[in-house]
Amino acid sequence: MTSVTPVATTGGSVHQFVIAVKETVKKRRLFGPDDHVLVALSGGPDSTALLAALAALERAGELARLSAVHVDHGLRPGSAAEADACAELCARLDVAFHRRAVEVARGNVQSRARLARYAALRAVALEAGATRIATGHTRTDQAETVLHRLLRGAGARGLGAIPPKRGLLVRPLLDRSRAEVRAFLRDEGLPWLEDPSNESPRYTRNRIRRELLPALARFNPAFEEALARTADLLRDDDRALERIARREAGALAWADARRVRVLPLAVRRRAVRRLWKAATGSRRGLSASHVEAVLGLFDRAGPGRISLPGDREACLGGDRLWIGRQPEEALARRRRGRPQKG
Amino acid sequence: MTSVTPVATTGGSVHQFVIAVKETVKKRRLFGPDDHVLVALSGGPDSTALLAALAALERAGELARLSAVHVDHGLRPGSAAEADACAELCARLDVAFHRRAVEVARGNVQSRARLARYAALRAVALEAGATRIATGHTRTDQAETVLHRLLRGAGARGLGAIPPKRGLLVRPLLDRSRAEVRAFLRDEGLPWLEDPSNESPRYTRNRIRRELLPALARFNPAFEEALARTADLLRDDDRALERIARREAGALAWADARRVRVLPLAVRRRAVRRLWKAATGSRRGLSASHVEAVLGLFDRAGPGRISLPGDREACLGGDRLWIGRQPEEALARRRRGRPQKG
Repeated sequence: MTSVTPVATTGGSVHQFVIAVKETVKKRRLFGPDDHVLVALSGGPDSTALLAALAALERAGELARLSAVHVDHGLRPGSAAEADACAELCARLDVAFHRRAVEVARGNVQSRARLARYAALRAVALEAGATRIATGHTRTDQAETVLHRLLRGAGARGLGAIPPKRGLLVRPLLDRSRAEVRAFLRDEGLPWLEDPSNESPRYTRNRIRRELLPALARFNPAFEEALARTADLLRDDDRALERIARREAGALAWADARRVRVLPLAVRRRAVRRLWKAATGSRRGLSASHVEAVLGLFDRAGPGRISLPGDREACLGGDRLWIGRQPEEALARRRRGRPQKG
Repeated sequence: MTSVTPVATTGGSVHQFVIAVKETVKKRRLFGPDDHVLVALSGGPDSTALLAALAALERAGELARLSAVHVDHGLRPGSAAEADACAELCARLDVAFHRRAVEVARGNVQSRARLARYAALRAVALEAGATRIATGHTRTDQAETVLHRLLRGAGARGLGAIPPKRGLLVRPLLDRSRAEVRAFLRDEGLPWLEDPSNESPRYTRNRIRRELLPALARFNPAFEEALARTADLLRDDDRALERIARREAGALAWADARRVRVLPLAVRRRAVRRLWKAATGSRRGLSASHVEAVLGLFDRAGPGRISLPGDREACLGGDRLWIGRQPEEALARRRRGRPQKG
């Protein structure tokens, strides 16, 4: 980010990329002329292109205010220099710049860094009075996410992949490819940073990018568009079915078993997942086979119960289906049955 | 199919493959002890294994009667010899055998052969009094179909891929892999024919098999199971949403626009596809972007109309949304606008 060349979007005609981003913003209703949009700026190609495109849209009156934040995870040497490069870019584009350092807990680094990043983004948005947080996810990211989830046998919720908006978050580049992003940056003479972790074969996502995407392109050069369309369709399907599940099964850890019994299978599955979330506080930890096992309770003549992860259980009886903690005596019985450790 | 060795399933212990097929039959409710099952027998590995497994289940009383039919498409030299080999296999397994020759119209050979084959299967089932028609589709076929549809950007209906049952049709091998099929055939000493068209790189399906499946296996050795689970989940999602669309929009070429307007997007899309089918007699010919264009009519303040393929149009007005033929004068106007041919 040292060689600074003039940014063409500051004057003259508007780049096709910017026009396309504007179309996405309109079509997906991401923000309006009264919104203050905070860009999550890593300094990589996607968020750099996002910032430049939104700066052009700000000048055109499509949003009220633009600012940017760089979240420094402190995971790599030289991360402070990355923040400096982001500050320089914002100065050049005349965008208010924030920087925020976060500490990433040990463990699954990618996942924890992500959580810390989003928490920091929300905090800065609150302080700055931003009404939207924009991230640089592209259609290429969308395709990678769909494949990643498909390889695990996800349903509509997982294959819905990256939502174009969710709460304050918006993704204005979600209909643009990574190739379009690079072309825009080159045309505009904008500098960007390469994220070294993108090259590491350690992460499945990088391997999908390098091994699977080229294979798919040989079948359909427009495969990215295809996978993104699938994600859009399935996200809407899931939303409609979740809405029905909420109406029919509520948001408690128990539901009326007579009502659940007559629901379509697709809704019954979601009702079980809602019970699980109400009982554990999270959607995580319940596999598709657990869901099928809970639904299997309805095939029995009388009441029944099955064990679930985290010392939970699902019970059907007295016209109620519920998920909760296993009673202490059942746990003690199971523990006695286990071989002693060490 | 010349070297005939004894079939182990006729005596002794039951092969694990047969037990697994029986589980699929139970879990997916494919047929019962009173059913007469007609196997579609090409003589290839899948249908050969299917026939042998169902013969074992017939002996165990899991179905009332078993018969087989070989449909000769007459597309390859030596297809009569294939029918003979099938007859020989049926004689050996003591299964009633039918053969049926069909003529395949020119054009898209794979698609037309498929249509002719299924028509012949239904005709023979009717004559023979069969209550089910079983085909040899495996989980590997399911994974290939999911990928094929995903590359086109399909929604839940397309990604639901091969249904385990539909009308008379049942697919008892849908939870078994192609590798399991081969192992079973080898264990049982059963001969099979290789379909030379499976090796042709002309067909996308064969290329998916040879190029894409090995790439996916490097990410998840159990990817087939994953993709098949996705298909099962999405098929049920689609079924639930289709049911709502039918209830809300009916099965006519017009629907109450006020009702359609307030439906969830996922249902509204399906309502449009139902109108299309009612108007044209088929689901084909309407792309996802056509569906979005029809739904775009609701964004306008007043009435509106848009052209659709096959000289059809969608109109919104007078509280009705309908799809039908464009009026003659509109077509004439459009034709005058076109350049004259030759």
